[in-house]
Amino acid sequence: MPDFNAPVRDLEFVLHEVLDVEHAGIEGYDALEPDLTRAILDEAGKLARDVLAPLNPVGDQQGCQLENGVVRTPDGFTDAYAQMKAGGWTGLDCDPDYGGQGMPYVLNTAVGEIFVSANMAFQIYLGLTHGAYNAIHAHGSDAQKATYLPRMVSGDWTGTMNLTEPHCGTDLGLMRTKAEPQDGGSYAITGQKIFISAGEHDLTDNIIHLVLAKIPDGPEGIKGVSLFIVPKFLVNEDGSLGNRNAVTCGKIEEKMGIHGNATCVMNYDGATGYLLGAEHKGMRAMFTMMNEARLGVGLQGYAQAEPAYQAALDYARERLQGRAVTGDENPDGPADPLIVHPDIRRNLLDQKSFVEGARAFTLWGAQMIDKARRNQDEEAEAMISLLTPVLKGFLTDQGFEMTIQAQQVFGGHGYIEETGMSQFARDARIAMIYEGANGVQALDLVGRKLGADGGMPMMAFFEMIKAFIRDQGEDEALATSILDPLKSASKDLQEAAMFFVQNGVKNPNEALSGSYDFMHLFGHVGLGYMWAKMAVVATKALADGTGDPAFYEAKLATARFYMARRLPAVSMHKARILSGGATVMALDADHF
Amino acid sequence: MPDFNAPVRDLEFVLHEVLDVEHAGIEGYDALEPDLTRAILDEAGKLARDVLAPLNPVGDQQGCQLENGVVRTPDGFTDAYAQMKAGGWTGLDCDPDYGGQGMPYVLNTAVGEIFVSANMAFQIYLGLTHGAYNAIHAHGSDAQKATYLPRMVSGDWTGTMNLTEPHCGTDLGLMRTKAEPQDGGSYAITGQKIFISAGEHDLTDNIIHLVLAKIPDGPEGIKGVSLFIVPKFLVNEDGSLGNRNAVTCGKIEEKMGIHGNATCVMNYDGATGYLLGAEHKGMRAMFTMMNEARLGVGLQGYAQAEPAYQAALDYARERLQGRAVTGDENPDGPADPLIVHPDIRRNLLDQKSFVEGARAFTLWGAQMIDKARRNQDEEAEAMISLLTPVLKGFLTDQGFEMTIQAQQVFGGHGYIEETGMSQFARDARIAMIYEGANGVQALDLVGRKLGADGGMPMMAFFEMIKAFIRDQGEDEALATSILDPLKSASKDLQEAAMFFVQNGVKNPNEALSGSYDFMHLFGHVGLGYMWAKMAVVATKALADGTGDPAFYEAKLATARFYMARRLPAVSMHKARILSGGATVMALDADHF
Repeated sequence: MPDFNAPVRDLEFVLHEVLDVEHAGIEGYDALEPDLTRAILDEAGKLARDVLAPLNPVGDQQGCQLENGVVRTPDGFTDAYAQMKAGGWTGLDCDPDYGGQGMPYVLNTAVGEIFVSANMAFQIYLGLTHGAYNAIHAHGSDAQKATYLPRMVSGDWTGTMNLTEPHCGTDLGLMRTKAEPQDGGSYAITGQKIFISAGEHDLTDNIIHLVLAKIPDGPEGIKGVSLFIVPKFLVNEDGSLGNRNAVTCGKIEEKMGIHGNATCVMNYDGATGYLLGAEHKGMRAMFTMMNEARLGVGLQGYAQAEPAYQAALDYARERLQGRAVTGDENPDGPADPLIVHPDIRRNLLDQKSFVEGARAFTLWGAQMIDKARRNQDEEAEAMISLLTPVLKGFLTDQGFEMTIQAQQVFGGHGYIEETGMSQFARDARIAMIYEGANGVQALDLVGRKLGADGGMPMMAFFEMIKAFIRDQGEDEALATSILDPLKSASKDLQEAAMFFVQNGVKNPNEALSGSYDFMHLFGHVGLGYMWAKMAVVATKALADGTGDPAFYEAKLATARFYMARRLPAVSMHKARILSGGATVMALDADHF
Repeated sequence: MPDFNAPVRDLEFVLHEVLDVEHAGIEGYDALEPDLTRAILDEAGKLARDVLAPLNPVGDQQGCQLENGVVRTPDGFTDAYAQMKAGGWTGLDCDPDYGGQGMPYVLNTAVGEIFVSANMAFQIYLGLTHGAYNAIHAHGSDAQKATYLPRMVSGDWTGTMNLTEPHCGTDLGLMRTKAEPQDGGSYAITGQKIFISAGEHDLTDNIIHLVLAKIPDGPEGIKGVSLFIVPKFLVNEDGSLGNRNAVTCGKIEEKMGIHGNATCVMNYDGATGYLLGAEHKGMRAMFTMMNEARLGVGLQGYAQAEPAYQAALDYARERLQGRAVTGDENPDGPADPLIVHPDIRRNLLDQKSFVEGARAFTLWGAQMIDKARRNQDEEAEAMISLLTPVLKGFLTDQGFEMTIQAQQVFGGHGYIEETGMSQFARDARIAMIYEGANGVQALDLVGRKLGADGGMPMMAFFEMIKAFIRDQGEDEALATSILDPLKSASKDLQEAAMFFVQNGVKNPNEALSGSYDFMHLFGHVGLGYMWAKMAVVATKALADGTGDPAFYEAKLATARFYMARRLPAVSMHKARILSGGATVMALDADHF
């Protein structure tokens, strides 16, 4: 099984050199001193390497077991969970009023990447809890917050999100789960929810389910959906656990991957639920957390590509097969290592340039969430709302593709479960689907975000790139290999956006037929922008003679690779978009 | 689990309308009358639907079991195999001298597609046998042919190909398996082979292993490799089974997919082997079968995408979720079917246009193999040799991608094994790896095939497309939406080839860095050419008023989609290629 080494230096590079978090002028960011962040990332890295990563194949092979309503997680998961709790990792960026450490979300994101890379299925138990924590923190009454948040921050209890039903996923307006008012102000929740990650397990004494349901006689469709807190065990006034609530796990799904996480069918049989937020405003409550939740899934995409890349790189350096076309590079050995072959290098650089670009893109997005939240900055809020579907859709699509490319480096050995390369791909696959399938992300991007606020956030994005390029002045090398391609790609994105504006109103299908391509076009420009930023930092560091020159040379070389070899995808996406919707809409449904 | 319906009408369309096999002037093709091919395809379709497809999930779930050296295939496989034998499907295109039916390979390919779509893991047992049959037929002595071929043609015995060893896959020169001459002219084979598909099983009484090994004191490396027949049970003079040979299955691999096929570690402990062909000419013997074997794997790529597409299409028609943006299309229902959504249509059309284009491309390739073999046509041989890496690499990469897209249509349900969508993807994944990993295909294409015969086959390909376009005359609609894009894409391919010619000699890395992109660029032009041919046929049929107009309209619409939405990939691949090798080769192996 592949070892995992947390990319601490690369995370520091993004946090301190590219984003310069300490001086970003965001409330609470002054705490992010390099010594502190390094200590935290190092500790997270140790836990990831020594505890979580070794359990990753165990979780895959054993999966979760449901017996008599009880779910057993794979061997070692409860111990690992105890260590996560003991280390305070469950509350790193949570509100100090409820026992959290109050660190910025950007740092939590960096730490989260490390944990997801080591063991995605395990980390989902914590990720869901964090989502539920956010919802209660944003919409709960004081009493609800006091009852639930401290135990969720400490990790004593976990949380879940219950949206999907057998007949409705994206279209939640079709929901059937009912919430009937009962004495004492609570509701009786009845219905079935499916695909509930971490819905039942043996890691904690209690599980706090957040459940979307309809109160009878409310508005039709999505406008009649409310959000409820449904604890597995009711909580007594003194905080002790009371009666078992009428919510049970009916089944665990057999899935393609993330076997270590229990994906449950949850049956609510008149379970006691407490309204969270206002009646019929359940979707609004969900939307509050959406940017963060979706960024977290985008992160899963590249965070699976990271360990897959590490393993592929090791293999390419060690496996001797064939000879370099330009002459033996390992003349004393029976063959040269795989990494001498141009196509293996092309493959590895695809992975490397994606993962490092995606990391910068994601942490930049996390910083924007902090800025929006901590500084009440509306422009940052608008920008991250625009970027969220891109972060989610593009990074998970490409992340999965890169796990496949990493697997390919291993040849036949990559297809054998023993090497662990299959698991990275199978686990990464889910991120393209859940938290809004990527087609829904594309629809959100083109159908809602692009035209939001009269298109101001989109225009601000273009202006930001223009200003960035202008600011770099006259550096010839940078201009040719880095800035010109970015400029051209950004123009392509603008042209595509303009096409939608001009044609989408008359015929929305003209725009929506190109939505998926637009999401990818946008993603490439986003990563291109990140690589340009990283190249500028690396150029300066090399000129100043600070740090390890090999590190910065590698960043520059990878930036040039991205521009030359990855960014040309924009021309394809643009051409597809500009071809319009006619060929997509022409065929009658019966004649496919 | 998804039903499977053999695409008989589409296969007939390619065979009789696009390729016009009956009048193609190839030895034996006059037998391919539409009534005959329909009867055969229909029968194959029934067997596929009723017997093979229902066993596909069974094979995936049960896998094969190794106990005390005996491998048990999944429930139902032995029965299904008996039906394949009884129907004569094992010898459809085999030599009548050995009991085969002597049908053209192109028909066997069409039938093979149906069986692979229904149950790829099962069909591999038959595919490997066919490969071994080919090798013995081409290189065996009369006695060897008489001993082995009739039983392989009848399906009484199966065959395998043993190439890979733990430390060498692509680089077979590193091989360690030894073949020591022993009394009576046979050899004692000693060594370990891995990844041996169908290496051991309970379908037949005997298994004929073809094994690459080195005779001591022969030439170094790949030039010292010979090919041997190593039967599981030695065959007595009278054809009865004799002693058990010293070849055993040491282990079955746990794989990402094709669980129904036993992928074996095979241990040879002084097993008796018989030289097949000349000493030290083992690789040459393998190369004889390579075009056919690789085309067969390329077929697996699109033949997995076909049932995945069928399932995704059914689901998109039935699943109600959301409303069409241009107004309700199912006003009496709670929601519209998925297929109203532009991005779902885009996704489905990606799949449809790929599968149908790939089918034409593959059958055209199979026809070329027939022409080369039956008419001893050297130009056809040169052309199919050029196209083989494209057929293998492009069709398996894209085929896998399309199974992923089909899975995506199902949302969360696609990730659950129950729907069967995961299996299509997991099974399709292997085709990108075995029979020469796709990076090796790209290397073969650019490093060997492109420059073969002074580049004549490549030039012949360009000439063929030019002539085709010229032949279409002045049809305006066809020109704009079909022929112009093909012409432009073909020019891009030519430009890329020219770049390799101009730069590859000075610095081979300039060419090899772009090899993977070239394979895909070539593949898109190939499919574009197929779609243009299909569009011409459809246009003519519509003008003539023959057949079902809806069928031909759908072909035309799909052709237009391919040109507008898939072919633009060529611009991306060209840009990457023309960016050269510098960014790929820049980074030192230690600094990745």
